[in-house]
Parts: sequence; structure tokens; C-alpha cells
Amino acid sequence: MQMHASERTIYLSNILREDALERWISQFQQPIRIEKIAVQTANQRVLAQPVFSKRSVPHYHAAAMDGICVRAEDTFGADENCPKLLKQKEQFEYIDTGQKVPDHFDSVIMIEYVHIYDDQTLEIRTPATPWQHIRPIGEDFQQGDLLFPQYHQLRPADLGMLLAGGILEVEVIARPFVTIIPTGNEIVSPAEEVEQGEIVEFNGTVFSAFIDEWGGQSDLSPIVKDDKNLLRAALLSAVEKSDLVIINAGSSAGSRDYTVHILKEIGEVFVHGIATRPGKPVILAKVNETLVVGLPGYPVSAYLGLEWFVKPFIEMYLQTRPKQKEKIVAKLGRRIVSDMGSEDFIRMNIGYINGEFIANPRSRFAGVIRSVTHSDGLLIVPVSCMGYEQGEKVEILLERTRKEIEEAYIVTGSHDICIDLLEVELNKQKKARHLISSHVGSMAGVMAIQKGEAHIAGIHLLDPVTGIYNDTYIKQFLSHMDIVRIPFLKRMQGWFLPKNADFHIETVQDIVKSARPFVNRQKGAGTRILFDLLLKENGILPSQIKGYNREMYTHIGVAVEVNATNGIGLGIKPAAYEMGCQFVPICEESYDWIMTQEFFESEKGQAWYELIQSDSVIQEIEKIPGYRIPRDLQVIHYPANTSVK
Amino acid sequence: MQMHASERTIYLSNILREDALERWISQFQQPIRIEKIAVQTANQRVLAQPVFSKRSVPHYHAAAMDGICVRAEDTFGADENCPKLLKQKEQFEYIDTGQKVPDHFDSVIMIEYVHIYDDQTLEIRTPATPWQHIRPIGEDFQQGDLLFPQYHQLRPADLGMLLAGGILEVEVIARPFVTIIPTGNEIVSPAEEVEQGEIVEFNGTVFSAFIDEWGGQSDLSPIVKDDKNLLRAALLSAVEKSDLVIINAGSSAGSRDYTVHILKEIGEVFVHGIATRPGKPVILAKVNETLVVGLPGYPVSAYLGLEWFVKPFIEMYLQTRPKQKEKIVAKLGRRIVSDMGSEDFIRMNIGYINGEFIANPRSRFAGVIRSVTHSDGLLIVPVSCMGYEQGEKVEILLERTRKEIEEAYIVTGSHDICIDLLEVELNKQKKARHLISSHVGSMAGVMAIQKGEAHIAGIHLLDPVTGIYNDTYIKQFLSHMDIVRIPFLKRMQGWFLPKNADFHIETVQDIVKSARPFVNRQKGAGTRILFDLLLKENGILPSQIKGYNREMYTHIGVAVEVNATNGIGLGIKPAAYEMGCQFVPICEESYDWIMTQEFFESEKGQAWYELIQSDSVIQEIEKIPGYRIPRDLQVIHYPANTSVK
Repeated sequence: MQMHASERTIYLSNILREDALERWISQFQQPIRIEKIAVQTANQRVLAQPVFSKRSVPHYHAAAMDGICVRAEDTFGADENCPKLLKQKEQFEYIDTGQKVPDHFDSVIMIEYVHIYDDQTLEIRTPATPWQHIRPIGEDFQQGDLLFPQYHQLRPADLGMLLAGGILEVEVIARPFVTIIPTGNEIVSPAEEVEQGEIVEFNGTVFSAFIDEWGGQSDLSPIVKDDKNLLRAALLSAVEKSDLVIINAGSSAGSRDYTVHILKEIGEVFVHGIATRPGKPVILAKVNETLVVGLPGYPVSAYLGLEWFVKPFIEMYLQTRPKQKEKIVAKLGRRIVSDMGSEDFIRMNIGYINGEFIANPRSRFAGVIRSVTHSDGLLIVPVSCMGYEQGEKVEILLERTRKEIEEAYIVTGSHDICIDLLEVELNKQKKARHLISSHVGSMAGVMAIQKGEAHIAGIHLLDPVTGIYNDTYIKQFLSHMDIVRIPFLKRMQGWFLPKNADFHIETVQDIVKSARPFVNRQKGAGTRILFDLLLKENGILPSQIKGYNREMYTHIGVAVEVNATNGIGLGIKPAAYEMGCQFVPICEESYDWIMTQEFFESEKGQAWYELIQSDSVIQEIEKIPGYRIPRDLQVIHYPANTSVK
Repeated sequence: MQMHASERTIYLSNILREDALERWISQFQQPIRIEKIAVQTANQRVLAQPVFSKRSVPHYHAAAMDGICVRAEDTFGADENCPKLLKQKEQFEYIDTGQKVPDHFDSVIMIEYVHIYDDQTLEIRTPATPWQHIRPIGEDFQQGDLLFPQYHQLRPADLGMLLAGGILEVEVIARPFVTIIPTGNEIVSPAEEVEQGEIVEFNGTVFSAFIDEWGGQSDLSPIVKDDKNLLRAALLSAVEKSDLVIINAGSSAGSRDYTVHILKEIGEVFVHGIATRPGKPVILAKVNETLVVGLPGYPVSAYLGLEWFVKPFIEMYLQTRPKQKEKIVAKLGRRIVSDMGSEDFIRMNIGYINGEFIANPRSRFAGVIRSVTHSDGLLIVPVSCMGYEQGEKVEILLERTRKEIEEAYIVTGSHDICIDLLEVELNKQKKARHLISSHVGSMAGVMAIQKGEAHIAGIHLLDPVTGIYNDTYIKQFLSHMDIVRIPFLKRMQGWFLPKNADFHIETVQDIVKSARPFVNRQKGAGTRILFDLLLKENGILPSQIKGYNREMYTHIGVAVEVNATNGIGLGIKPAAYEMGCQFVPICEESYDWIMTQEFFESEKGQAWYELIQSDSVIQEIEKIPGYRIPRDLQVIHYPANTSVK
């Protein structure tokens, strides 16, 4: 089934996104469908016609207050010394707000200014002026007045105005109907069992939610396999019934990327490939007067492509103004490198630290959906720009509110599940603050504190010389700063053995003896430092360990590989537990919080200190296998200029 | 059926809004309902539980690029001078993005760097490093990782992450169920014929749209008449099935405002009356553990009360953060007076003129729904503040985007239907700009230009001495400015006679002779000036005109009264036409645009000049009975310091 390289279309064009958008917009010539709907269901809909009132409001002279209606001339001359008496029916009637003022009366007196004389008679002590407290006909608006122009998007109060004006139904622009066709042999529906090499179809659900939010009406088709005939048939049937068709993926240049060929055959392709990173493999086409967009499969690229072309399509169709994200200016915590000739879209984390916004890039790999869901903002690097230096100020489009970012804790360093639990606890306690975490490893965590990029770092750095955690590194790298370390979590490290292992391991010598493959961690990982220390202490050379060079990047990855290869690994207990590995404990490692003294003393810092000591937090964390929190947390101060011992 | 004054509860408490809100929040102890729903339908919903991944993503080592997978060691040493040949199956396999890398390979080479040697053999010219272009297990996230904490509000991309993580259903907080009970003898359903003294029920529809937008689920009950037993039964049945009940209106102190009495009888009332204007008559109560809010009937007050108490209720229930409106600082175009002891909420129009925001109050009467639908922002005057001076800077909560306000044309002066049509045309032409109009009368329009509060004013001011329109007034009031006048619209004024009149009128003498009631306009209105001029020219005294003192504020109002009283009026043709009156033309009046020379010369001003000359605008306006636009519009310049002739 595989084609050879020669049969692949491996070249995409590289046209500017704005140029692609211009072609896209110029191809938009669809007839816009209009529908008549009840006003009660018309919130957020866009008027297809201007609406003029059918009724004046009020449509009669109405009392504006509760009180009595009178003829003003009957009250002239009344004062405290010379009150006037008024007879019911002839000279006054009680009236409530909104009631019609009878034709023979021309003024309303508020009930507060009326004094009872007898059963049929009232006394008043100030005169009324003609038309006081009366809402004349058409005070709000008049029959024939424009209520809303064409293309106005209705808001809740607008519905009230329409009903008041006698309008029961409105002609609105129909929601553009967008069919989404997920394609690919490797794609399976979310409800199915997923095998290795298979990917769950989730882009369609995301597209669908975005489209509905933007005012379209989405229809998610069943998955179509990579078969030219099936794809052609699916496309032809979709364009029949849709205002727009999205096909996902197959828009690139892989051996099974048929989409562009089929679209050329049954319609016209006017863009294939745009100068962006990620998001390059986009197809813009037209089949039988219906626009079709092919989006790449990687979620990050796919959602960008959706925003670049589908959102403007819906806005054009509905004639609404583009909704714009809030912008802020932030200082870059890291250098950003960009190629000339492509516009880069980089998801950022943003922290509010020492009164300024600091932004750092998340993973730039288009496959990582977490980079979208856990991002705070988007940095766009223009085509002609080669990037930005660390410390440079850049403009960022926000994906959270500015307030959320200002209030959040920025936690970085090595990832541990306890950060997740702290996030859960913070949200549960309904603190205004929440937690933004990025997982960059312990050493980068130390550097983030040094550079003022995070409030708190979680680190577990073993000194390979002394065998002590964290202390040495603070003295070495943060000696010029006032730092606080809070030893927080003790977590058990140990050997991972396969689920159904028929062998046992206690020491590194046992590994050598067993001759089984070892699954290692990458250089710089805390667990790798521990393993190398164990080898050194026991006088064993890396070359004696089979698979020493096979590096995994996570504890879970190690556990999976241990099961798959019937091998041995080293890591923390919960990962072994999660993947069903056997676990042989070796030693506890220390996972500590570090932060500046200044932050620790701040209100925010003290709230953190309180949080990590709270009973519910400790209880939740100690449910994790191999996890222990010391009672009475220590706070160790490292004043500036303490040199390495 | 009317009660006497003595039976009314005419006193409301005057507690601060914040204090009322605090009581309201402290009474919120409801059990929060939770429901399990499919991830596909969970956009915008709030998680009731933290969600942890059931699967690592990727859950196998996956190719990150289209290309071939290899063993890195087979490629070591390859370079341009010494390429390596690789045999299919043994040494390489083709692989597409996302496919599983077979266990015996450990690297992926992009298709672009592969050269075909023969059918089974490829040539490579650079070595691969181990694990290049491979996504290791858990690169995105790992089994057991926290995907989202409790109370996280899901967004479209989050749904993708959940599905990818093997989550098909989520527990979310149920939308709080809010029952809305409209009450009142005078209230009729929008679909019914409305008689004089009756009001269409539209608040319920507005409440409903707001509640659904805020994340609640609304249920609009049928209208309940002002009958204690019916009201009690409706309330008791609503509290049974609801998380919150809204009763509207009857929350004030009118003779039929039973609500507070019934609520005291069947539950507990903890607030009746708050220190705000408008919005004072709010009831906050609790019946059988369900919160009940009574809101006033006037739309402006009702929607404020909804925002003060129902929005926070929904946010508390859903545990979401309050959405906040954007704020700007604007200069007040007019003085704002406020009573000590009440917090004032004033809807504002905002214009962006000469580089600053200028804000002017709309009608402050709570019955005018147009003040809500056509407002640009809300000014809140604190309890302890007595108001602001003209020119003072105040903070305003925006109800449109800042960009919309910056781009809009601010048109003021006398209202004419042509302004509506220009608004329609602007929207139709999809100009970025739109039109914000306020109708203050011609003279106030002149003043607005003088004070720099509007871009353009539409005026029709007759000089009672010369009988000429507009010219005199510019020379008199704007002599210190460079002004442009564009005579725009000629509209026919004439006598209004009743629909089925059996008499005819040509002159003012005829009116005197007929002895029929005349329906006049208010002092200062252009039409009133014309009528007074006609009387003077014909030597007739006001006292000779029956009903001379009966003043209406609008053309439509005059037409309605003419029909109702079988009388005579004076006004413009379309109003007569709209209400079916007979019309006897007298003379054309000039409705002109005035603006500063500076604005006229600006890009925005020139775009306006183009707009008002466009064929479609002229065509649409000339469809109006009695309306005529001269071809080749004149532009008359009034340089500064031109004195009155």
C-alpha cells in the first residue's frame, strides 16, 4: 500500500497567509441563506433585514408612577396653607404605573404626595403640572422607527425591544452549515478501543465546538478511510448540502495525502501550502461553488488553520465583525528563533512577576495539544522576522483574561503529580488565584527563579558528589539572591520490573547479572543522575549495562518500555503503579520548593505556604503510592552572597 | 378593585447594593446538581471533578514526520561524499506521520532527505540521530496526568484533549434551572392583540436570553394575574423545581404589588428595596431553601437587577469567575446630577471625537428600553457622590467594543428617518464604521457641535424672522468655528387630518373656522416654530386656536391624537402616512447636516459626504412620502468669526 518517494507530492507552495486569505475571501460568492425565526429564539442571531417598529411604545399615554391621575388645572393654587380637595371619579382616579391615563385627565401625582381626606376625597398640597409623570405615546420609540439595521447582531435586551415594537418574528442570516470530514486509515472514533498506531479522532469535535461558538452550524461526518473513491464520494456529497466543507487531514504531502489530487479533479484548488509554522499544509479549494478547506492533522496546526480560514468564513457569511483577542506586552523569558520566510505561531505561558508580564514559549511541536489547552497567549513572529532576544518586549494575544494571568501562581521546574493536586485544591478552595505550571526540569527551574520568570520552582537535584538534594545547586546558581527552600515531598525511587516479572532485582549488580535490557532516562534527569551515582558507588561501568543508551523522557515512558521489553527501569513509584509494573524501593528523593525571599514574604507567597501545609493537600498527596510529606515543613533561608562551602 | 392609599406599602428599605449582595450570597447554600455528559457536548461546561488522563498521548512511539524509519546506527558516517544505502524491510520502512515506529527501528528520516537508488534501496547523505522525529510515549501528556482541575470551564480544544486522553464522558455542574414568572393584570403575551393600557410581556424573553448566555437554563412561565392565590400557587410550584425563581414585577409598592406579602407568608424576605436609581424595588427572598428574586417591571431597572443578583447567582452555582466589561475613561459632555444616598446607573452614549472619548447620558427614565439597547456604556455614580461636572473624566463600563466606538459616526440633533436609513446603508455597505445617533433636537444638535460632542448634527431650525432654515443659527451660535453646512433633505410639512375626515383645511384661518381641536407640538420644536410663524403671518392669536396648549412631543404622537380627537395637526408627511392620517401639504422644510470644517475634511468626514450622495441612499430616502434630496449637494462653508448679518 505504501507509495514510493517519487510518487509523493512533496512540495507545497509557500504563499503568505494574508495573500491566501485574500484569495479565500475573493472566492466567497455564496448565496447567503436567510430564515425567519421567532424573536424569542433570536439571541445572538444576525438580522438579514432592517427592522422597523410596528407599534409606538408606549402606544397610549401611560402613568409613569403609582398614584392618582388628575386634571392639572384642578390642582392649580394648592399649597401647604391652602390644600385642594379632589373627588374620586370626577376629579381623580387611582392609577398604577403603566396604566392608561384616561382621556379627561392630563397629569399624574405620585401616591407619596396624596393625603386621605375621606373615603371618596383626597387632599393635595402642591399643584401638578400638565403631563407630569405621564409617558407620552412614543416616548421610547415610535411606530415606523428603525429598531435595528440590517446585519445587527441581536443581544438579549434587543429581543425585548422587538417584542415591545410588535415584532414577533425576524428574518436572520442562517447559521452557515459546515460539514467536517475526518479522514485517515489510522483514525478511530473516540468510543473505540485504540490500538498501537491508531489515533483517536478528536479534531472533529474541537472544530465542531469552535464553529458552533462562532455562530455556524457544524455537522461531523463519520471517518473516511484513505481511499480515493470514498474520499471523492464523501466530498461530493458534503459540498451538496454545505456552505463550507472541512477535510481533515490529508492536506500535506504524505503517501496517503490524496485530498489535493481529488480536489483538483472535482474542483479548483487555489492555495496549497502557506508560509506559516506550524500550519503550512493547508488546502483552499472550491467544488461546485462550495468552498472547501483542507486542514493538517496535528491539532495545533489544525486549530490555527481553522481560525485563519473558517472563522473569517463564518464572519463573512454572518456579516459580523471579527472578535479580537486582548493584547498585552510581555518580556520574553527566553530567546525565540524563527526562520525567515515563515510566520511563526508560538503558544506562550505568561506570568505576572515583579509587576511585569514574562512570557515563555511552550512546546512548538504541532502535535502537542497541551500546548494549546494550557497556553496563556499566542505570539506571532512575522515572516520577515528572525526572532526575538531574551528580555525583548513582544505583543501577545491573550487566551485567558489579563486578570487571571495577573493572579496566577507561576510554578515551574520538574513536574510532579503534587502540582496537579495543588492546582485541584486551589480551584476547589475557590481562591481567586490559580496555577499555571510548565514542566521544564529541575535545572531549568533553578534558572527560571534566577531570571525572575516564575514564582516557585519544584526541584529534585541530587548532588552526585555529596548525595544531597537541592542545597548545592541553590548555593551555586542562586548565590547572589535571597532564596527560600521548603523541603516538601519525599518520593520513593526504585526499580521498575515488568508486570509479570519472574525475576527480582535489588542492586545494580543484580542488573548486570540478570543481563536484561535496562531502560534509561535522558541525561540531566534527576533519576539519571541517581542511576549514574549508583553505578559509580558500586564500581560498575555504563558499558556493563545493556541498553544504557536507550533513553526515555518520562517515568511513565520507562514503565511502558519495561513491560514491552521485559526489562528493568528506575523511577518513582506512582509511574510503576500506574502501568502495573512491579516496584522495588531504593531510596527517597527530596522534591523541594524554591522561591525568592521577597516572594515568600509577599501575600501571595504566604498564601502558598499556607496552601501546601493544609490538611486536605497533605491528605490528597499522601494517597499517592510512595509519597510522604513531612509534618511541620521547614523553611530554609539562603541569604544573598552565601558562597559554596 | 383599587385599594386606597392607606392599604399600600409605600416604604422600601434603602440598603446598599453591596450589602444586599452579601446577604444574597450568604443565603446561597443550595446543593449543586451534577450531571454526566458526553465530552462532545461539553463545550463551555464546568467540570464538577478534576479529570485525569486514562491514556498517554501518544500511547506508542510515533513518527513525527512523513519519511522512513531506520536504525540510527545504520546511518552513522553517511555524508555527501560517502552516502549510505539502505535496504527496504531490513534497514528501513516507509512511515507516515503518526504511525507507530516498529520496535526494531529508533529514528525517522524526513522524506525530503531520502534519495531513491533502486526499487528496494534508498540512499541517504546525512546520518540520523537516535530518536529524531519520533514522538515518545507520553510526549503530550501521560496516563494519570491531571488534564483539568475541578471547576475548569471547558473550551473547544479542551474537548480534544479529553478525547485524546480516553475520556468520553465528564461530570459537569448542571446549568442552574431558573424559572421566570411574569405577573400583572396589564401584561399580555407578545402574540396577543394589545389594547390601550396593556403592555406586552417582553422582560421574560430578555431574562431568558441573558440567563442562557450566562450558563443557566431558563424556563419562562405563563403570565400570572395579580391575584394572591394564583401568585402563591405559582411561586410554590416554581420553587419546587428550580434552583432560582424570578418574579417580575410586583416588587414595588403599588396597590397590586402582592409579591412581598406572599413571600413573607411562605418564606423569608431578607431585602426589599436597595439604594440604587433605577432598580430600587428589588426583593430578595428564600422559600423552602430556594432563592427568589423579585425584579421591578421597568425594563431598565429589571435588567440591572438581573445583572446584580441573577448573574452572580449563576456564577456562584457554576463556580465561574465573573465576566467583566471593558472600562474606558471618557470626558462628560454634560453635567450629571445624582442624589446622595443612591447609587445611580446611567446609560451613556460615547463618541470618539478629536482623539478623546466624550460621553453623554441617555434618558435616565427606567421605562425606556431604547436607553439600554442603544447605549454604548454604563456610568455608575457611587452612593456618596452628588454627580459630575461637564468636562470631568469618568470611568465607563463598555457595552460595545472600544473599536466600534472609535470608528462610529456620532450623529445628533433632530431625529429624522433618513438617519435610520443611513445607518442601514452603512451596515449594508459593510463599512467598518457604524452610526451612533442620539435625538436631542436641532438646537441641542448645534450646541453638540459647538462643544465637540458629535461629528455631525442634523438640524431644521426655522428663523421666525426671515423664514429661512438653519443659516441664522450657525452664524449666531457657531461663529467662532469653521463650520460646514450641507443642505440635505427637503421634507414636506402639512396639515394632519383624521383618517376619515369629512372636512378639509388649507390655511390657519380654516382651523379657526372649523373650531376643531388642534394638536400642537412642544415649544422649541421646528414644527411649533412654523405654526407660530403661520399664525403671526396671518394675524391669528394662539387663544383663537382650540387646544393650542395641548402639546405632543413627536410627529407620530400628533398623528395619533388627531385620529383620536378628530382634530387637526401639523407635521411631516411620513408620520401622517404611517398613522393613516390625511395630509395637506403646506411647505418644504430644510433638514441640513452641520459639522466642523476639520471633520468634513477628514477621511471620516469625506466618507460621510460620499455616503449621503450615493445613489442607493438617495433612492431609499426618496421612497419616503414627501421626501426629496437635491441632486449635486451644496457644501456651504462658514469660516470662523463671520458675524451675523
